[in-house]
This record gives sequence, C-alpha cells and structure tokens, in this order.
Amino acid sequence: MNIDWLIQPTAPLDEAAARRAREHQQQLTKPPGSLGQLEMLAEWLAARQGTERPAADRLAITVFAADHGLASEGVSAFPQAVTGEMVKNFAHGGAAISVLARELGAKLEVVNLGTLKDTGPLPGVIDTRLGPGTANALHEAAMSTEQLQAALAAGRGAVARTKDKGSQLFIGGDMGIGNTASATACACALLDLPAAALTGPGTGLDAAGVARKAALIQQALDRHRESLGEPLEILRRLGGFEIAALTGSYIACAQHRLPVLVDGFITSAAALLAVRIQPGTRDWLLFCHRSAEPGHARILEALGAEPLLDLGLRLGEGSGAAAAVPLLRLACALHNGMATFADAGVSEKDTG
Amino acid sequence: MNIDWLIQPTAPLDEAAARRAREHQQQLTKPPGSLGQLEMLAEWLAARQGTERPAADRLAITVFAADHGLASEGVSAFPQAVTGEMVKNFAHGGAAISVLARELGAKLEVVNLGTLKDTGPLPGVIDTRLGPGTANALHEAAMSTEQLQAALAAGRGAVARTKDKGSQLFIGGDMGIGNTASATACACALLDLPAAALTGPGTGLDAAGVARKAALIQQALDRHRESLGEPLEILRRLGGFEIAALTGSYIACAQHRLPVLVDGFITSAAALLAVRIQPGTRDWLLFCHRSAEPGHARILEALGAEPLLDLGLRLGEGSGAAAAVPLLRLACALHNGMATFADAGVSEKDTG
Repeated sequence: MNIDWLIQPTAPLDEAAARRAREHQQQLTKPPGSLGQLEMLAEWLAARQGTERPAADRLAITVFAADHGLASEGVSAFPQAVTGEMVKNFAHGGAAISVLARELGAKLEVVNLGTLKDTGPLPGVIDTRLGPGTANALHEAAMSTEQLQAALAAGRGAVARTKDKGSQLFIGGDMGIGNTASATACACALLDLPAAALTGPGTGLDAAGVARKAALIQQALDRHRESLGEPLEILRRLGGFEIAALTGSYIACAQHRLPVLVDGFITSAAALLAVRIQPGTRDWLLFCHRSAEPGHARILEALGAEPLLDLGLRLGEGSGAAAAVPLLRLACALHNGMATFADAGVSEKDTG
Repeated sequence: MNIDWLIQPTAPLDEAAARRAREHQQQLTKPPGSLGQLEMLAEWLAARQGTERPAADRLAITVFAADHGLASEGVSAFPQAVTGEMVKNFAHGGAAISVLARELGAKLEVVNLGTLKDTGPLPGVIDTRLGPGTANALHEAAMSTEQLQAALAAGRGAVARTKDKGSQLFIGGDMGIGNTASATACACALLDLPAAALTGPGTGLDAAGVARKAALIQQALDRHRESLGEPLEILRRLGGFEIAALTGSYIACAQHRLPVLVDGFITSAAALLAVRIQPGTRDWLLFCHRSAEPGHARILEALGAEPLLDLGLRLGEGSGAAAAVPLLRLACALHNGMATFADAGVSEKDTG
C-alpha cells in the first residue's frame, strides 16, 4: 500500500457541457438568472457529469466512523462509547443520516475505521478497524504511516463502491466523538491559526468546556509544531481515521469524476486537507451547509466556499449534505423539464 | 359579498402539541439542537397541525395570476402579454412552478384573476377574471371595492379547495407582469417609505429602468397619498388582483388552521397586508426564501421574518416556497423516524 495515487491528476471539467447547459438555461420560460442558485447547480453538475442534462437521482451515502485518542482528554460533551453505539444506530436505521438516506432513496454504507470497541458484524457496516481509535495527539502522532495510508485508501475504496452502485454524487459523513477537536487541530495547522481561533462547542460544550478544549488542541499543536509543514503529516499527527478517509475519498472523487457534496465542519477540514494535497480536488466539491460550529467560516473562506444552506445544523454524519440533495434534484428537474420560450410561445424580455 | 370574514379571529396555536414535539426531539439520537432549523420546522408544524407527529406529504399549490395597469407605464423588463402566456405555460406544465409541483407530487391550480386578454379554457386554470387587469394606479384606484372584495374572496376560496384536497400546507404563488411595482407601492405605503427605498429590478430592469420604475411608483404613492391610512385601502388603490387574493388566502389559512409557506417578494408584500389587516395571521406564516429583490429585506424585517433559504431566486410563482418543501418533509421524517437514546441504546450527553 502506498500513497502515490494521491498525486494522480484530477479530472478536468467539461466546459463544453457547462456552456450548453448555460445556453439551454437562457431559453427556459423565466427571466434570465431568476432561479439563482438552482441554475448554478444544474450548470455545476453539467460540467462534472459531462452532459447538458445533469441528474442527481441515484445516490449512495458513506459514513466514516472512528474514535479519537484526544477524546480521553474530555474534549466532547458526549462519552466516547457513543461512536460505537452510533455505528449500531446507523446500521439499525435510527440515526439522522439513516432517516435522511431512506427519505432520499439513497443507499447508506458505514465504514468503521476504528471504534474503541469492536462493534461486531452489523448490516451495512464495513469493518476496516485500523485500531481502537487513534492515539492521543497530545503525546504522539494520532496515526502511524501505515494507518494513514490505510485510512486514505479506505476513502478511495468507498468511492469505487459508490461508483459501482451507480451513484451520481458522493456524500461522505463523519462520526467520531472528539472529531471536532481533531478537525480543528488539522485546520489550525493548515491555516496557521491558534486553537482559540477555530475551537467551538462541537456537540454541545459550554464556554468553560470550549476553553478547555482549545487549550488541549493548542497543546497538541505545540507538541507537533516542528513537524506540521506538509498536509499529509498534519493529518497523520493531528487527524482521525475518518478524517483521513474523507480526505482520500474527496481526492479519489476528483480523479474519478464523481461530484462531491461536502457536509459541514469535519468534512470541510477534510476538504481543506484534500485540496492542500491535491489542489485539483477543489473543482469537484460543492459545499452544502454552513455549520453552526463557529470555526467553519474560516475554513470555508480558505476554500473560497459559500455553502448552499445555512440551517444551523451541527451534527455531521453527512446530514447537511443530504439536506441539500432535494435542491440538486429540483435544479435538475427545472433544467431538464421546463419549457423554452419558443416551445411555450412566451414572449422574451424586451430588448428595446 | 363583503369583507366581514377578514376580521374573524385566527386560530390559536396548539402549544401542547408543540411542547410534546419539543420533548420528543430531546430524546432523539443526536446532540440536542444539532439539527437546527430542521428541529424548529417540525415543532412549528406540530403547533399548527395540532399533533406531535407533523407531516408535509400532501401538498397543493395555487398560483394567482393577473395583469397590472401600471405595466402600461413600462415598469417591467417583459411585455404585458407574458402574464397570459405564462398562464397557458402553467396549464401545459412548462413553467418552473409546474415542474416543481410535479417533482413534489403537488397538485397545481392556477387562478386567473384578470389577465389583459381572455386566455380561454385551460386545464387546471380557474377563470375568475375581474377585469382586463387592474386600472392604472397613476390615475385612479387599481381596483373598485367590488373587485377588491372578489379578489380577497378568491384567495379564501382557493384555501377552501386546498383543504378539500387534503393538503397539509398552503403555497400561494404569483404571476403578473408589473407586480413588483404594485407590491412595492403597497409595501412603501404600509411601511411609510419612499419608493426609492424598496424599488428593485424585478424580472431584470437595468439601473435606468429601476430609477424610472421608482419614480412611477412614487407618483402613484403621491397620487393616493391622502387615502393610504388603512391597509385594505392601500391594497385597493395600489395593489393587484393576485396580491389581494394572496392577502385573502393568508388570512383564511390562519382562520382555518392551514400553515402557509410564503414565497418571495410579492407574497411577502401580501403577507404584510394580511398581517396589518388581521395580525393573528402572522403566526401561520413560514417565510421560505429571501428574494434577490433588494426591497424584500425591509418587508421581512417589518414582519420579523428570517427565511429558511437564500438561493438568489427572484421568480415568484411560489417557486421559493416550493423549494423549501423538501426541507419540511425531511424535518418531519427525522422528527418521526429517528430512534430515541433509550430505543437505540446510545449514551446521552455527559452531565457531570
């Protein structure tokens, strides 16, 4: 196993398809531009699916789950056991993303990259445990090189399965108690910011908890300070298995022409890692939701991203990306289904 | 025909159902509040549908269409014939709202309140023409008292049909070349603002066109200045048939317990009229989309409204409200379908 694949080129966009889609939009019976972002979404998909008639009907969702060494320091409002419990909840259909997947007619796959305890065989869960969670980044690198490579490759493997299922989009979700701490640490290292600039409440810390979490993240940053020059090394030392898998998945999507719906805070940190490792990845990412986690704004800014939705979600699991899927579907339906001015005999804009 | 029905009381909210819904939300396997607006939407519907288990599955959409006397002054980027042409396009399934209704599994009804020319019999179109458009408000009141009463009643009738169809929500859309001018005039009179403060490009005027439109709206406001004390008189003198129908429909919804999804600029002006006529209406309105029309912000502010979506739409037809329907459906699915902590054996938040 190696990481040479990460630097393989990403796929170019199909500018001709985008242009045809844009020209088609101009013919539809509405004032030009009056469907706003819904027009943009259809064009965005057209350029990536290589067709003037984009679609978002078929969908598979992957949730990557793993535990975090940092969680033992008390960086979350929830006990660490919840990661494994939620893996079971995903499998049994009771979690938010389970319900969203059902509503969207999407297949849901969970990849267990390393919960603290073995969760046993579960329907729809792929067991790829690389350890009982990552190591504690306060004291050592979160991952070995082998674990990092395996986690990145697990993301790539999930993308291959998503394509095999015929999905027209990729949604990666995250589950891991403590993972806002790991994601924050990675983003701080990438953006050269102190922990306090990005640390937030995650699943629900109070102000004292946030301050404590920021101090711990700063300790981790200081511990590894001399070794944070390269994004892969930042990911290895401060990240999580699921964050690495998301990072690998996004790069693989860009290489294999699968448009990505990015969810919220954790996934945006993974997106930032992916773009720093392989800049061409950026073109394949659609940012779906502005997280209530305050540090998200800085990460989005660094990525030049303006999310579609701002609904105050702060859950992860891919929920914010899933919530955007109906908008993509409506955008495609409008693009493909509306009458043209000529067809409908509707007068165009006065040009005098 | 009279307007006594407008002052009939609006229905109270079911606070007990809202409380039970809120308590149920707290038990679901997610950090409390982490689904943000999606939790709020489920509670909002619960309070109005009078059930702990709200639903947004069954839907009917009504588009009110009419022409405007002001349009002859050149306040729109499109020729006035487009209103009637679009009524035909709605009926033949080619307009944006036609496509959205199909995608959402919603019944679409169009009420022709007064296009310039008779559109003839069309499938799904109810012909209630009150005249060949309103009169030109630069010179006289847009409507007679009888026309105003009939237009308000047409809105009420549409609500009754919507309930008969079993729809769990009300969406009213608008179509009428020149109607941003009429809506702007009404909103300026209600908010005591000069035309320039609220006038925007509508379907696509350039800067010179916007300036000309603002001057014309100001002329209309000045023409009727002495008679703009009461919201119904503002509506009669400056409004449009479809704006009056929307106003009546919103009040009727509040009286008959049908939650309303408000669309964009025109519908928000109608909502402001409705709330000024019957303040209890406000409780039944969910604002779905922030229009790209710049004056919308002032109207929303006056209504204390913060729309769910901001997608840059500026089309009308109910399109921004329709785009929000999938979010309500996802909110209900999550609310009704997620496992509780107890059911799923997931640990709750640390309380230590």
